[in-house]
Amino acid sequence: MGIVTTNFKVEGMSCGHCTASIEKAVGDLPGVLEVVASLEDKTATVVYEADRTDVAAIAATIIDQGFDVI
Amino acid sequence: MGIVTTNFKVEGMSCGHCTASIEKAVGDLPGVLEVVASLEDKTATVVYEADRTDVAAIAATIIDQGFDVI
Repeated sequence: MGIVTTNFKVEGMSCGHCTASIEKAVGDLPGVLEVVASLEDKTATVVYEADRTDVAAIAATIIDQGFDVI
Repeated sequence: MGIVTTNFKVEGMSCGHCTASIEKAVGDLPGVLEVVASLEDKTATVVYEADRTDVAAIAATIIDQGFDVI
């Protein structure tokens, strides 16, 4: 399935601590290679191995950090 | 000199991560007994032993976390 990049639309980030919490939590998921959360764009861009994790698991992790994925 | 409570007016907190970062950093100072940062009130209320730390050291620590003390 290879390496996939998904751009999540995230509501509720208000500061650099918020982006850092998403980058840390999603970055710790197995199969995630890179995470960039943007306060300005209200996004989290995640590069991951599609056979090790998926959109649902990543979205759940973002939500678990207290944000909304829309 | 005893135990003193000082209420700092803090600008720049936008979320619970911000209040947590202040509570952790100030709470780690020697002589600090209690810290409560309030997003709504834009304050950090700190209880400390006045012979072990002071307003300047606490304010510097809050500023060091990326906030303004006014």
